[in-house]
Amino acid sequence: MVEPLPPSVSKTTVTHIVMMDDCNHTHVLFGGRLMAWMDEACAIATYKHTGMVCATVSLQHMNFNRRIKIGSIVTIEAQLTRSFNTSMEVIAEVWQESKHLNPRLKVNEAYFTFVAMDKDGHKHKIPHILPQSKAEQLRYDMALERRKIGLKSRKLTSTSSEH
Amino acid sequence: MVEPLPPSVSKTTVTHIVMMDDCNHTHVLFGGRLMAWMDEACAIATYKHTGMVCATVSLQHMNFNRRIKIGSIVTIEAQLTRSFNTSMEVIAEVWQESKHLNPRLKVNEAYFTFVAMDKDGHKHKIPHILPQSKAEQLRYDMALERRKIGLKSRKLTSTSSEH
Amino acid sequence: MVEPLPPSVSKTTVTHIVMMDDCNHTHVLFGGRLMAWMDEACAIATYKHTGMVCATVSLQHMNFNRRIKIGSIVTIEAQLTRSFNTSMEVIAEVWQESKHLNPRLKVNEAYFTFVAMDKDGHKHKIPHILPQSKAEQLRYDMALERRKIGLKSRKLTSTSSEH
Amino acid sequence: MVEPLPPSVSKTTVTHIVMMDDCNHTHVLFGGRLMAWMDEACAIATYKHTGMVCATVSLQHMNFNRRIKIGSIVTIEAQLTRSFNTSMEVIAEVWQESKHLNPRLKVNEAYFTFVAMDKDGHKHKIPHILPQSKAEQLRYDMALERRKIGLKSRKLTSTSSEH
Amino acid sequence: MVEPLPPSVSKTTVTHIVMMDDCNHTHVLFGGRLMAWMDEACAIATYKHTGMVCATVSLQHMNFNRRIKIGSIVTIEAQLTRSFNTSMEVIAEVWQESKHLNPRLKVNEAYFTFVAMDKDGHKHKIPHILPQSKAEQLRYDMALERRKIGLKSRKLTSTSSEH
Amino acid sequence: MVEPLPPSVSKTTVTHIVMMDDCNHTHVLFGGRLMAWMDEACAIATYKHTGMVCATVSLQHMNFNRRIKIGSIVTIEAQLTRSFNTSMEVIAEVWQESKHLNPRLKVNEAYFTFVAMDKDGHKHKIPHILPQSKAEQLRYDMALERRKIGLKSRKLTSTSSEH
Repeated sequence: MVEPLPPSVSKTTVTHIVMMDDCNHTHVLFGGRLMAWMDEACAIATYKHTGMVCATVSLQHMNFNRRIKIGSIVTIEAQLTRSFNTSMEVIAEVWQESKHLNPRLKVNEAYFTFVAMDKDGHKHKIPHILPQSKAEQLRYDMALERRKIGLKSRKLTSTSSEH
Repeated sequence: MVEPLPPSVSKTTVTHIVMMDDCNHTHVLFGGRLMAWMDEACAIATYKHTGMVCATVSLQHMNFNRRIKIGSIVTIEAQLTRSFNTSMEVIAEVWQESKHLNPRLKVNEAYFTFVAMDKDGHKHKIPHILPQSKAEQLRYDMALERRKIGLKSRKLTSTSSEH
Repeated sequence: MVEPLPPSVSKTTVTHIVMMDDCNHTHVLFGGRLMAWMDEACAIATYKHTGMVCATVSLQHMNFNRRIKIGSIVTIEAQLTRSFNTSMEVIAEVWQESKHLNPRLKVNEAYFTFVAMDKDGHKHKIPHILPQSKAEQLRYDMALERRKIGLKSRKLTSTSSEH
Repeated sequence: MVEPLPPSVSKTTVTHIVMMDDCNHTHVLFGGRLMAWMDEACAIATYKHTGMVCATVSLQHMNFNRRIKIGSIVTIEAQLTRSFNTSMEVIAEVWQESKHLNPRLKVNEAYFTFVAMDKDGHKHKIPHILPQSKAEQLRYDMALERRKIGLKSRKLTSTSSEH
Repeated sequence: MVEPLPPSVSKTTVTHIVMMDDCNHTHVLFGGRLMAWMDEACAIATYKHTGMVCATVSLQHMNFNRRIKIGSIVTIEAQLTRSFNTSMEVIAEVWQESKHLNPRLKVNEAYFTFVAMDKDGHKHKIPHILPQSKAEQLRYDMALERRKIGLKSRKLTSTSSEH
Repeated sequence: MVEPLPPSVSKTTVTHIVMMDDCNHTHVLFGGRLMAWMDEACAIATYKHTGMVCATVSLQHMNFNRRIKIGSIVTIEAQLTRSFNTSMEVIAEVWQESKHLNPRLKVNEAYFTFVAMDKDGHKHKIPHILPQSKAEQLRYDMALERRKIGLKSRKLTSTSSEH
């Protein structure tokens, strides 16, 4: 039996400068570009936790509350919140860095679900998560509830798209 | 008062060949790359409907049920389902093309919300949507329900991320 | 014997937003970038028609009559006009989308020739094209004449480049 | 009056390694990628001749006689053949480098026409070309004939695309 | 007078997955790609320290002792070691992540020098560095010596390249 | 025994237009981007000399004395200066092209060391270099001295980074 791991093992940080080709013509970062950056950070986190290449299976509802402008420094932090048998939930938090005297600002976050699969598409067992802090424990507990909401959203989506 | 428009005005089609740099090392398309493609198609659809550059404000829950392999031909179709005062919902559907004798396969779909904003961040009024078919009417009606679920997800997410 | 297919089987649509890195410093789309987009759309069209990966063998004379500016929405539509034994002609038409109340504008078109080849470079037989409309029939008929002009251009080019 | 310049002033060399994302799935260089490389080399050549940013206006018939494989070293040489009042013809020749003991191989060539334009779209006068060698003189003379064929192709294309 | 800052203010972490287009044909990461990643991480570190966009002015001798293969997870950590009047030295360390049970491996490091400049090319004063740990103090002290070697290398290079 | 080759066999020229995504927000070319371009030109030069894919093993001290602005035409010329048993030194010189009436300006140069390796990481013997001109002979002679300085820098770097 594989030993459980703390969330910190998977912690992944990626910092980007927002450049012209990341932006639309009002010089605001594309939502889709940010999603891709978050997904990539999560993929690295799952690799650190499992030692295997993993694939995205779902993404929770996500809001873009702040317009991130060209030239911004954006940091993405991803780490596992909980693993189930063959899937795991990863949180990606997005921070905008400002000048050195001010604290950075949280601008986004989302929960992704990944699975570890080999080339033939067979799923693999994943080491469990052992929360270490109160915040990690809270995220661990909420992961179950997010899972239920995810299933509900999936059903609603399926109904509305039948045609 | 701006006249309402049918969803077809915003219809946008983008076809991609899945290449090496779109894939992880099991040669499966990155989830984040697909999200970025969908967001870009939606952004074009909102431009066609409003004549303005629009920004993503949220994305509904999204599942990746199928592993899309390198070399696949992937088509994304985006069009507006409903517009509210200053925001609009856009559906992005993803199809995998197969050889000419077989029908193509639907592999994904998601609902994005966009707003039309000028350079100073002021929101603009958006023309209404006039559904033309039964399927369009159903999507139009369900858009309200998705909006409520979106708000619920947003609250749950906010709670769990306070730390 | 493989059955003939209508041109619509190969119909491929790709929409792009013209971004900063697609443009020169007067903010006008590079001709070469547009050619690459057209070639890619044609390659997808030939895949749909043949079910095989195909390679470009020639491109007819091409004009760039209109300067396409940054931020433009450009749609490329490709479909087969005619197939010969092992080669096929594909037309790529380029449209610039404007605000929703105005019709889109045709800004370019070109004829590409492709062949279907396997990894060892052997050519494959290609299903014939069965024109369905008057316009498709006209393109089908003209394909022969374009072929002759192509051969003439090839000869002239060869002569002038011998050194 | 601006003094005429020899073709060598505009001579531009660009060497590329053919990488995975330049190729289709039989590991052969995309025709469209090669066109984009050629157009870019020609744009640099026209900048050297005119000191201004120039835009592509047409491309002569072009053949892809050889499959260029992944890992190949491809060199593009562009230089002006002749300038007219406000337009100029540029030749782009493509060479595949082989191991050091063998001569390199010419794999492609094409003639592009460019104009020098300012930001408002006004065309500029261009310095004349003064051929220095017999080969340059031949290209200079043939440029007129290619121009006529270009016009013929343009007419034929226009006719067949009216619909 | 601006207050001195600890090196940690500028600490920047960027993690990359080594992909096909980052590699040559033996599937080994290009040295130049790694340099570009290191320079980008350093540029972000200097932004955090100065609140201004900074430009690279020199790079110390750099070795690539290990071949980094495709699919590797590479983390770059950059932070300031010392600032002078208008320039600052930044160290970029490169780590290769391995499976979760093993410690990561240091595979490269280099020292870059940057200056803070405005759009007109005028240099700006930079906050001083206040080392906090013994390791940071050592780097701070050695920065002077590296500066001298840099100047020597520059002279030698200049001599040998005069022609 | 493989015959020695003149440096000219490996001569490689690559010209780039500096575009938006090559620059930071003061519209100045990233140092790291220029390094990557230089490394790529050197890699091609080593391929021409050895007929094998080669990998970067070190880079000499490098200065960026001039800010290269967006829209600049930058030419990189690389060629071997000397080969040792299994390694070789390559010089990359960088020129900025200006309008046709003025001579181009040298803006940078650096010395890279490469090795020829097969897929399993075994080094290969490399043909010797036979300098043809006085300048080539000088570079050939100085290559030894640069090698010694490189070793010194390496030692100093190693010491200061132990922690």
